[in-house]
Amino acid sequence: MNAEILSIGDELLIGQVVNTNASWLGEQLSLLGVDVRRITAVGDDRSQLLEEFRRAWEQQDVVIATGGLGPTHDDITREAVCAFFNTDLVFNEIVLGDIERMFSDRNRQVTDVNRDQAMVPAGAEIIRNHDGTAPGYHFARDGKHFFVTPGVPYEMHAMVDNYILPQLRQNFQRKRGSLTLLTTGIPESTLSARLDGIATLVEDASVAFLPSPLGVRIRITARGDDEQSVSDRIGRLREFVEQRAGEYVFGSGRQTLEEVVGALLKETGLMVSVAESCTGGLITDKLTNVPGSSDWFERGVVTYSNESKTELLGVDESTLRDHGAVSRECAEAMADGIRQRSGGAIGISTTGIAGPTGGSAEKPVGLVWIGISSETGTFAHNFYFGGSRIRTKQRAAQAALDMLRRRLRSLPPIPTELTESS
Amino acid sequence: MNAEILSIGDELLIGQVVNTNASWLGEQLSLLGVDVRRITAVGDDRSQLLEEFRRAWEQQDVVIATGGLGPTHDDITREAVCAFFNTDLVFNEIVLGDIERMFSDRNRQVTDVNRDQAMVPAGAEIIRNHDGTAPGYHFARDGKHFFVTPGVPYEMHAMVDNYILPQLRQNFQRKRGSLTLLTTGIPESTLSARLDGIATLVEDASVAFLPSPLGVRIRITARGDDEQSVSDRIGRLREFVEQRAGEYVFGSGRQTLEEVVGALLKETGLMVSVAESCTGGLITDKLTNVPGSSDWFERGVVTYSNESKTELLGVDESTLRDHGAVSRECAEAMADGIRQRSGGAIGISTTGIAGPTGGSAEKPVGLVWIGISSETGTFAHNFYFGGSRIRTKQRAAQAALDMLRRRLRSLPPIPTELTESS
Repeated sequence: MNAEILSIGDELLIGQVVNTNASWLGEQLSLLGVDVRRITAVGDDRSQLLEEFRRAWEQQDVVIATGGLGPTHDDITREAVCAFFNTDLVFNEIVLGDIERMFSDRNRQVTDVNRDQAMVPAGAEIIRNHDGTAPGYHFARDGKHFFVTPGVPYEMHAMVDNYILPQLRQNFQRKRGSLTLLTTGIPESTLSARLDGIATLVEDASVAFLPSPLGVRIRITARGDDEQSVSDRIGRLREFVEQRAGEYVFGSGRQTLEEVVGALLKETGLMVSVAESCTGGLITDKLTNVPGSSDWFERGVVTYSNESKTELLGVDESTLRDHGAVSRECAEAMADGIRQRSGGAIGISTTGIAGPTGGSAEKPVGLVWIGISSETGTFAHNFYFGGSRIRTKQRAAQAALDMLRRRLRSLPPIPTELTESS
Repeated sequence: MNAEILSIGDELLIGQVVNTNASWLGEQLSLLGVDVRRITAVGDDRSQLLEEFRRAWEQQDVVIATGGLGPTHDDITREAVCAFFNTDLVFNEIVLGDIERMFSDRNRQVTDVNRDQAMVPAGAEIIRNHDGTAPGYHFARDGKHFFVTPGVPYEMHAMVDNYILPQLRQNFQRKRGSLTLLTTGIPESTLSARLDGIATLVEDASVAFLPSPLGVRIRITARGDDEQSVSDRIGRLREFVEQRAGEYVFGSGRQTLEEVVGALLKETGLMVSVAESCTGGLITDKLTNVPGSSDWFERGVVTYSNESKTELLGVDESTLRDHGAVSRECAEAMADGIRQRSGGAIGISTTGIAGPTGGSAEKPVGLVWIGISSETGTFAHNFYFGGSRIRTKQRAAQAALDMLRRRLRSLPPIPTELTESS
């Protein structure tokens, strides 16, 4: 089953808006088993739209057009759809009810402009919109499907989840499922070597590695005749990954490492505090993005100057003089210091050279010491992160959070790979 | 002059990568005056590529194809380009020189796979790549242009800036220029009311408002017969904006507010320190993203608990008891405290309710007090930021940095709009 995504709107062509709608849709359709052949972005131009509708409808089994359904004069998708399917607008009572309900919920008056959105193409199924005023449309003809949705991301997402995907799923007799496992601290090449053989381990299943600066995602997809066989296949692959690379898997789906760490802290009842130098507040920023973090995050300090390391963390001046601020000794003293002064259970620290200047042959840009201190002891390790200042901050913050996760789960303190190769 | 952007790669269709290349290119071409008619993303499929090349080349004056030039077997763009232009690969010495230089700079050996990238389509101009191994190609035929670049963003950006835009600029007899002014602290509707009349003020010029959570960008575009008339037109519009909304304009182009604040601090020789509660480290994270920030950033603390506010900032327990942590009194004491304890010249502070829980009728989710303390005095103001936890953090951090900018530039301490409306 082939599909095309048609994104409509001048703002996409002039670069005012990045087309995240299309990539989101592409992922949803691919996971369902639909083969996305093409993504096309065009402007709000009637004759061009008609031409694209004609071409896409001829080439594909499924066309999903998004955008241009708003109430203003430059939104012409509805009119173009009517012209293409050679039909007229008719009044739809259910849509008007949805619009009136939305306005009354917000204590606002329905205007004629809004009421006009209840006029919909005759012969189309209506896709109701509970998050905005413009409904979507669905034309099914000769086993092919033409869907139209608004371009507002959350309105489109809801229509795809609640209507379009269920409609398309009926076309797949075999069931399909997927699971994304999240890893950090291991490069893609090393991970795929550890998981050698996974590609052919289970029939009717596939595995993809998706690298990013914060870690590699492993996406497992399986098909089967029923739900049970799909979940068995996914389960066998998950087990294989856990056996070969378990310590690197921190979560699944759309979780973040800070959410995982936050849940572990909540579970254990421990409080954490953070002393940052080179990461400059990024670790505390990430931790405090998690709702409810005040339950397990006590305080953080960003000690850029030597004075602040001494005053706020009790790092000895002699440590700074003898070893420098970027050293094992300083990282350990910082982690110890924040733990003791906060009265918390765990302290973590970072000190390094984010660049672009300040590096030397002995201590190059990208060198970061990360420390952790808890009742079971204090420990620091050095990492070498290449790349830009911001990239180094991101990778160092992720490594520090991972060190915290490892202590909370009693795993090796740093990635085993690093121990083996050093 | 019409153009199409052709983005090549399976990863775009399955949603693994968001097509930011196309929006960046769309913006650059539009600013030059090229009319981008279509953005098409297709997979690494030879016959489909040939079909898209044929169609785009027939419809447009300019085609820019990006992606699929890498050295692996699934990169087939080079082969498809040869087939489309009915030409063969020939060895290019300059390209091999570039590749060898790149590898020797990184202390790595050139492999046969890399060497093969010096084979380029005969009859194409070469677009040199100083950031990677794959060169770009340029076919000029009958006044039309077909460009091919790698999909790696920074390699593509450099080729567009240094080769493609200069090539296309020759086709525009009239000159064109643009300037983006950056504002913060004023909603789009209020800003456009203040700038009423700007649309028709200067002939051959246009103004667009581009809102984002951190502020509204004002993009000024002008045309003229020569560079001087273009820059005069832009200058008159800039002056109009400065007169009507000058206090809100913090910079231009791609600057960030933290870069602007950092430059002002460097200029004045003042040091800043930060005490954050609800923004959770985001302000210090932003400040320390600026290279050289250690020259003007002394320290930051993230005081989530009441104890940490007292211990690290000297906030009186009675202040917390009588007024609560989210109050003018606490924000002022925090800003004062961090300034005095750091020995710095300026202290800024935030304390608020980021949500999703913790709000009350009197102190709703989204209420944030921001404080600033310097030799000229201490001051705090309350803001109401609706929206999610992360959105509230972002808007509060931006407002705090803007308060710092206003003090450094001796502007009104908070947006005049807020004073007028409250």
